[in-house]
Amino acid sequence: MRTSVTPSTDPTDYAYTHRLRVRFAETDAMGIVHHSRYLPYLEEARVEYLRSIGHPYHEIHEAGTDLAVLEAFVQYRLPLRFDDLVDVHLRMAQTTRTTFQMAYLLCVDDAAHATAVTVHGAVMNNRPTRLPSWLGELADQSGI
Amino acid sequence: MRTSVTPSTDPTDYAYTHRLRVRFAETDAMGIVHHSRYLPYLEEARVEYLRSIGHPYHEIHEAGTDLAVLEAFVQYRLPLRFDDLVDVHLRMAQTTRTTFQMAYLLCVDDAAHATAVTVHGAVMNNRPTRLPSWLGELADQSGI
Amino acid sequence: MRTSVTPSTDPTDYAYTHRLRVRFAETDAMGIVHHSRYLPYLEEARVEYLRSIGHPYHEIHEAGTDLAVLEAFVQYRLPLRFDDLVDVHLRMAQTTRTTFQMAYLLCVDDAAHATAVTVHGAVMNNRPTRLPSWLGELADQSGI
Amino acid sequence: MRTSVTPSTDPTDYAYTHRLRVRFAETDAMGIVHHSRYLPYLEEARVEYLRSIGHPYHEIHEAGTDLAVLEAFVQYRLPLRFDDLVDVHLRMAQTTRTTFQMAYLLCVDDAAHATAVTVHGAVMNNRPTRLPSWLGELADQSGI
Repeated sequence: MRTSVTPSTDPTDYAYTHRLRVRFAETDAMGIVHHSRYLPYLEEARVEYLRSIGHPYHEIHEAGTDLAVLEAFVQYRLPLRFDDLVDVHLRMAQTTRTTFQMAYLLCVDDAAHATAVTVHGAVMNNRPTRLPSWLGELADQSGI
Repeated sequence: MRTSVTPSTDPTDYAYTHRLRVRFAETDAMGIVHHSRYLPYLEEARVEYLRSIGHPYHEIHEAGTDLAVLEAFVQYRLPLRFDDLVDVHLRMAQTTRTTFQMAYLLCVDDAAHATAVTVHGAVMNNRPTRLPSWLGELADQSGI
Repeated sequence: MRTSVTPSTDPTDYAYTHRLRVRFAETDAMGIVHHSRYLPYLEEARVEYLRSIGHPYHEIHEAGTDLAVLEAFVQYRLPLRFDDLVDVHLRMAQTTRTTFQMAYLLCVDDAAHATAVTVHGAVMNNRPTRLPSWLGELADQSGI
Repeated sequence: MRTSVTPSTDPTDYAYTHRLRVRFAETDAMGIVHHSRYLPYLEEARVEYLRSIGHPYHEIHEAGTDLAVLEAFVQYRLPLRFDDLVDVHLRMAQTTRTTFQMAYLLCVDDAAHATAVTVHGAVMNNRPTRLPSWLGELADQSGI
């Protein structure tokens, strides 16, 4: 297991926040958001984060690198419900030469509903490759 | 609108049946299968039908043709629920030189829960192309 | 089939527009948005439309009425791709005592990528019931 | 983090196997199964496992207990592709008075494509409750 980060439940520990609203299609017969639906929320937040720092995903892809998901971990603390406004807080958590981790905190009205970690690997032609240099530097800047 | 077929609610009008079981992840907060989840059921049944007549989808794709979805229509009659065993009955309904229609009936314990029609177009390099000849002949054989 | 409306491809024919961005999780191996993923887009737009006219869905539900999907029709004209900004235009299209239809136009950069119609029935305790009066009046106001 | 199990990559370490086939709707624009789609595979396998040992999910639910997902961890080793036949091997991994863990190995043609762990809590009226006794005994029987 590469996941080595324990995500904080304090929103001020995160560098970026993306807000989204829960769709009815994402709920299940327990009346709450199905646990599999959190992963697309994390992905949407990552994409918006990368855009916000000047690296829209298609530019990364066109530069020849893809960022494959190697691991995902979610801890479900409180349910999410239809129409909830969810703040997905995220930060770059750790990098190696070819991988990086991101940590997430999902809040509704500032209450922690879930935490998560994803691990990603840079891939070129289906083989591991060095992270783009700006990605490696991101983790350094975040001081972690 | 190309859809021109009214699907029968009599299972004996259909050429092929694929059985599947409803996943919990496919339900919504009304306690029933979300209406968007029927389309993957139809797709799964199409894929199994094509395999059953000797044309697994990857062979069609490798022969250079893709089958794009042009239209989809679903009529929801009775809800589907978690763990239901659903019989997806289907038949080739009509073809033109470049398109075909399929009709569907979804039953649980022989009761009609939904009917549907999908229209597909043969596509090569993103442009409409003739249907593979065996596909055109299928509709002829079904006598419709 | 209750669907009786032909959706216009002119955005100015629609009363409301909801903008959303395509998630990577909604694409498929053809590199485009999977055809089943359009239905949650329509639903998200409906929910925002109802909120915009002062009827958030949970108030309708708490007043004892649910709005079941009876039929859905989608015509796929041009593919949607990851990260596209999609304008979902919609309008109330027709009502009966217990049902209403909505028409949709999905555009990217003002080009029509899809049209759709959904038919909904008011349901109370799983039985058809009269539409809430404000819903019936909506269609009248739209002059259709 | 409650997840404390390292799933084996040897299929013979698992008590139960459920086979499923990848749907086209589960792929993404990288041409592989989207990482969020593995969680419904695990869920489907859990449901079939519980049925196989005489405890279909609806009986657990009707007895007043729900099994909430508290945590999920997936390690993606090799991609899954459209039409792959996937063997989901699973075993009860560890229990406490109110929770249990399950470990999973996903194989295609006996090659390990993913491993996973889920943690579940027994819930009655939205509050943690003791596991049903047969569930606690399962872990004992598996000798782990």
